[in-house]
Amino acid sequence: MDFELSSEQRAIRDTVREFARSALAPGYLDRARSSDFPWELHRRVAELGALGVLTQDEHNPLGAPDYLTAGVVVEELAYGDSNLANAAIIPMFTSALISEFATEPVRERLLGPLLSGEIYLAFGLTEPGSGSDAAAMRTTAVADADGYSISGEKTSVTMLGESEAILLLARTVRDGAAVGVSAFVVPLDAPGIATASMHDTGWRSLGRGTLALEEVRVSAEALVGAEGAAFRTVLSGFDFTRPLLVLTAVGCASVAIDDTVRYARERSAFGAPLARFEGISFPLAEHATRLEAARLLCYAALCGRGAGTAHTAHAAMAKWFGAQAATAAVHDCLLMHGNYGYTTELPFEQRLRDVMAIEIADGTAQVQKMIIARELFGADFLPYAR
Amino acid sequence: MDFELSSEQRAIRDTVREFARSALAPGYLDRARSSDFPWELHRRVAELGALGVLTQDEHNPLGAPDYLTAGVVVEELAYGDSNLANAAIIPMFTSALISEFATEPVRERLLGPLLSGEIYLAFGLTEPGSGSDAAAMRTTAVADADGYSISGEKTSVTMLGESEAILLLARTVRDGAAVGVSAFVVPLDAPGIATASMHDTGWRSLGRGTLALEEVRVSAEALVGAEGAAFRTVLSGFDFTRPLLVLTAVGCASVAIDDTVRYARERSAFGAPLARFEGISFPLAEHATRLEAARLLCYAALCGRGAGTAHTAHAAMAKWFGAQAATAAVHDCLLMHGNYGYTTELPFEQRLRDVMAIEIADGTAQVQKMIIARELFGADFLPYAR
Amino acid sequence: MDFELSSEQRAIRDTVREFARSALAPGYLDRARSSDFPWELHRRVAELGALGVLTQDEHNPLGAPDYLTAGVVVEELAYGDSNLANAAIIPMFTSALISEFATEPVRERLLGPLLSGEIYLAFGLTEPGSGSDAAAMRTTAVADADGYSISGEKTSVTMLGESEAILLLARTVRDGAAVGVSAFVVPLDAPGIATASMHDTGWRSLGRGTLALEEVRVSAEALVGAEGAAFRTVLSGFDFTRPLLVLTAVGCASVAIDDTVRYARERSAFGAPLARFEGISFPLAEHATRLEAARLLCYAALCGRGAGTAHTAHAAMAKWFGAQAATAAVHDCLLMHGNYGYTTELPFEQRLRDVMAIEIADGTAQVQKMIIARELFGADFLPYAR
Amino acid sequence: MDFELSSEQRAIRDTVREFARSALAPGYLDRARSSDFPWELHRRVAELGALGVLTQDEHNPLGAPDYLTAGVVVEELAYGDSNLANAAIIPMFTSALISEFATEPVRERLLGPLLSGEIYLAFGLTEPGSGSDAAAMRTTAVADADGYSISGEKTSVTMLGESEAILLLARTVRDGAAVGVSAFVVPLDAPGIATASMHDTGWRSLGRGTLALEEVRVSAEALVGAEGAAFRTVLSGFDFTRPLLVLTAVGCASVAIDDTVRYARERSAFGAPLARFEGISFPLAEHATRLEAARLLCYAALCGRGAGTAHTAHAAMAKWFGAQAATAAVHDCLLMHGNYGYTTELPFEQRLRDVMAIEIADGTAQVQKMIIARELFGADFLPYAR
Repeated sequence: MDFELSSEQRAIRDTVREFARSALAPGYLDRARSSDFPWELHRRVAELGALGVLTQDEHNPLGAPDYLTAGVVVEELAYGDSNLANAAIIPMFTSALISEFATEPVRERLLGPLLSGEIYLAFGLTEPGSGSDAAAMRTTAVADADGYSISGEKTSVTMLGESEAILLLARTVRDGAAVGVSAFVVPLDAPGIATASMHDTGWRSLGRGTLALEEVRVSAEALVGAEGAAFRTVLSGFDFTRPLLVLTAVGCASVAIDDTVRYARERSAFGAPLARFEGISFPLAEHATRLEAARLLCYAALCGRGAGTAHTAHAAMAKWFGAQAATAAVHDCLLMHGNYGYTTELPFEQRLRDVMAIEIADGTAQVQKMIIARELFGADFLPYAR
Repeated sequence: MDFELSSEQRAIRDTVREFARSALAPGYLDRARSSDFPWELHRRVAELGALGVLTQDEHNPLGAPDYLTAGVVVEELAYGDSNLANAAIIPMFTSALISEFATEPVRERLLGPLLSGEIYLAFGLTEPGSGSDAAAMRTTAVADADGYSISGEKTSVTMLGESEAILLLARTVRDGAAVGVSAFVVPLDAPGIATASMHDTGWRSLGRGTLALEEVRVSAEALVGAEGAAFRTVLSGFDFTRPLLVLTAVGCASVAIDDTVRYARERSAFGAPLARFEGISFPLAEHATRLEAARLLCYAALCGRGAGTAHTAHAAMAKWFGAQAATAAVHDCLLMHGNYGYTTELPFEQRLRDVMAIEIADGTAQVQKMIIARELFGADFLPYAR
Repeated sequence: MDFELSSEQRAIRDTVREFARSALAPGYLDRARSSDFPWELHRRVAELGALGVLTQDEHNPLGAPDYLTAGVVVEELAYGDSNLANAAIIPMFTSALISEFATEPVRERLLGPLLSGEIYLAFGLTEPGSGSDAAAMRTTAVADADGYSISGEKTSVTMLGESEAILLLARTVRDGAAVGVSAFVVPLDAPGIATASMHDTGWRSLGRGTLALEEVRVSAEALVGAEGAAFRTVLSGFDFTRPLLVLTAVGCASVAIDDTVRYARERSAFGAPLARFEGISFPLAEHATRLEAARLLCYAALCGRGAGTAHTAHAAMAKWFGAQAATAAVHDCLLMHGNYGYTTELPFEQRLRDVMAIEIADGTAQVQKMIIARELFGADFLPYAR
Repeated sequence: MDFELSSEQRAIRDTVREFARSALAPGYLDRARSSDFPWELHRRVAELGALGVLTQDEHNPLGAPDYLTAGVVVEELAYGDSNLANAAIIPMFTSALISEFATEPVRERLLGPLLSGEIYLAFGLTEPGSGSDAAAMRTTAVADADGYSISGEKTSVTMLGESEAILLLARTVRDGAAVGVSAFVVPLDAPGIATASMHDTGWRSLGRGTLALEEVRVSAEALVGAEGAAFRTVLSGFDFTRPLLVLTAVGCASVAIDDTVRYARERSAFGAPLARFEGISFPLAEHATRLEAARLLCYAALCGRGAGTAHTAHAAMAKWFGAQAATAAVHDCLLMHGNYGYTTELPFEQRLRDVMAIEIADGTAQVQKMIIARELFGADFLPYAR
């Protein structure tokens, strides 16, 4: 067991840290309030080589997928701008899926621009009425001689408005028979597609949207991985997105804590710096502890993914515990700034709105606890198994 | 001991409840996002007789100050619109202070319009750098033959931009000697006054502001209560604003919970209504418990104020516990609505931003716990008493 | 609404307080470690008139049942000795049931000695395998011409070893048909009865036991309330035992906090009394807050019972919240005493063991939250209703 | 970064696990209630090679100190018997200190018997009135030509009654001048020594005691490390005992959770296994999460100690967070067993009493949070630095 980063990982971390603190942090608040996606900064993130660290092939600056490095990168980015950090996660995993499973023409067309931050590829899993209950998926792809005709709805698609195409999941029917769930790359300008924006309290510069597909035609080339095999290919080992999301929350909470530590050193009340009152310093010590614990749970999940060992429980633990810990820390930092913490001049209320997204994305705390309970008790004892 | 409202109180509650749910609730979300104060609705609140329930005189529909009724009124208003509920608290207590302590001309001029919701009178206690540490107050009124010359700064003044005048506190100096803190009514168009807006994450339609006074002249008529006696008059028994604030938080959390109960009955996952999953129903039961406990602490403080018995500890307990409980409930209700809870189409994110104000207003949790600790240990053991 | 005790209630409280602090507190620790029931002190509690405050008739010193007074009495007793306080609860309600529902001969025989603390009447509801799930009750009374023949098992019967008889519940069968649940008084020396002791971590001087009944014969005279009507009579409005139990926990936690406040004033570390460190004073302020909230929830439930208004939710809220708050307070007081808090020379470890019983008795937190959820959602949404 | 044990560590873990579950677990409850130390089992622990894993020399089966292995060993032991696990920690570090710092004759005499479990060497740091405030130490060793004369008091010495000697710390005075704190090995049968037992709620088979020294003479040979250098030698890097202690708590909580998982699968209520109720499965998932987080904090601290990198914050975080998490888990497991959980027939109440010791040993939560706050704010902002 070893809790140190490799020297290569440290170098990447330091580079991203320097970039995040100098180039991202200063404009975070303005960008977070705008609904314009900061493409230019996203491209600078891409130029760091950050988006390809999970790909199998030559596009990966590390030569091979490195989940822990991905985590370190998004944590550091989030210290400067948690929204840009989250914008990096989706290309990290969609590029990995494209590089491993897409057909040659699709890989050729998309992978380069995706990794250089020129285009964005959305990911469509959630449906209205399905939430985290994948068994309730209704979007359907009907196979025929020329390809597929896809109909259905997706919701909660991050960056939909900025994306060129979407990698989506659909139950597949061939010759009248259900053959399982498949993944497809669907251009967002295809006939039969209608999109709408969701208006969120945070993540504004990313935006989410809903997507309706009505007999949208794609060729066989659009298939990602084997037909009907999405659970074994595209969605296999997919738990790693949870620790990545949580590490953006940890990064966001860390900058809030650092700001508050500075404030508590400088601001006095009742004749002493706030930092000398345990009513301030102890909650900060508690938040620091929980964030460090969350970080370790995330790293353990990511290292498990990298090593090919079981990490579903670690990922679910990191998800509920870390998202809650980070949100609570940001909330408390806001409160510790008192009357000014409540204003929009300080960044805490915006951070709170951004970081809360992580409590919901990829499954609420309840979903994570069901996963952990399934590991503890076995699948026979799921609450809905009656 | 008796936990029932009187029949008169029940009648008032029912009237306010009906008004809040039919006239206030529907437009809450739109108003909460605007920086325009809804004067017309504030006047309708005034028409219910709500603003005068703490006054001593003929303006009080109840004939005498009734703190519990004030609490019930603001809780019910807050179920419909927590911001309008908070807008009612300040006239409740400034009208009481004016009716009891102001000079006759000031009472004549202000009391009627204040209680009918025609004008607003702000309250100025907090200063930059003082927060909840009243000993650090620096605003000074220098007495002379014609009245007073006031200089200093106030911050975090709610409804400053909509107010005609401000009731403020200042250390008073007469003949070169400090004679204690006095209260004054100062018109906001007086020469020497400069104001600026604060931009907050919630309470937008109320607004807060900062006020700079540079040798602002007021006549002796402006004095409220005896010179130097503000702690014995205007600020005496002032703890009751804490439970009033908290009851607006409780009202806001109650509507969030009712909405979530309805949602959990209707929305299904994994084949059953959410309400049947204890992962949903148990947290709601816990929130309901803590809100009820907060309500009782508030009522106990208000009844104590009414009965003239000790209620400082009850008020401080209600304040930290209730504000935290209400904010946590709203936060959880947001999360339980999943992907849609995070949008601005549902009211939860706005409620969260509004209700959080109560965690700060009139002293953070730390300040309240210092007050409770002082009751437990005695003033000799305050943390800053070293 | 009114949070003051009546002058009569205050007088009773003061009498019990004086008794508890002078006569009970000094020997609590020794008694708590013994398995001998302190009959002499129980009789002195009885002499205060404490046991009859819920009875309807001339045995009640207050003239009529007064649930709030019962609560105040057990809270005060518990400050001195939480076990003797709990020993008082059972005669309080069994005497009330006997006085209202028992047959004349049974009332004549038992009521006097019960109220004077000469004998003890146990109460038998829980069965092995049933816990809080009353629908699972299996003890059966078969009616015939001469009376009833009762068979089954009861468990977790407090004071079984010291009791003369038990008031127990049994499904009743007459002429081969189930006619509902009835209550019976069964002498513990009746043929067919076997008892065994349970060995508990706390409540040692009370003791719990299990009871096996094999065709135990009782005459018709033993019936308490109408046959088959126990849910409408004996068990109706039975929720009030929950706040009584919780008030013993609150009393126990209160003495722990008072001891710790004293200690924190006297003991110094790092050059100042512990009381000046917010790491000590703030948790104590939080515990004091939660205990006061618990107290108010209990009082509200008891006043509701007295007034005949709905109080099931208040009782369930008080139960989980108050038991948890009290246990957490005692636990923290132990820890704040550091190395000596862990010894058996100080009373904290014993108090912790005693107070934890309240987290379990009359239903764990889970059971209470199901009750509250039923109030929130309606009985159609119970978790087991699928 | 790597979260896997080495194959050698896995082999040791498996050996200790097998031993702990087969040889220790069955008798834990009986032993825990006795005040006899189970020497025979302690020797069997020693035979596994467990006690020497921190020593520098040939006595270490691993060849060099391995802090992580020490942690894994005590965690596994604690799953079977947390008291025997704690009994192993003291020889682990006293043997390391003896092997590194003691004089040759002392090392010759003590090291073999200590590592084979034949004798026990206590450790004396805490004094009455000093607690975690090392600056308050008063025990003094006055140097002269023949050695030292030691006077003072130590308290809270684990295993004092079973120890042959004690390794203790004393302020040292030579030629009338204070020369710093030194460590000495003092035989417990030396003239001038008086001991007394402390009676604790848990850790009974280990026992704690107090020690009074009145001009106890030791030769120069008794000195461990250079005179006056104890903070740079014996106490340097001493933070590692915190994660070791916490891992015994984690082990103890883990067996409680495993027992409860089994129970919740088998026991039904309301027509379904308890495990299907999220009111049971979710708290267990939460406890499992926090215990895993605690484990990782401990491992990180131990690996940091092994690698010679900063680990004080990790150790303090692990200490408060892990001890609290483990105690809360055991407490909840007790409650989930309902009426039987409260009995002494099930092991939960004993486990609770044993595991609580870890909340106090080596510094309460408050002390740990002061350490973390010092890392966050710097030593200038300690609460007592005013």
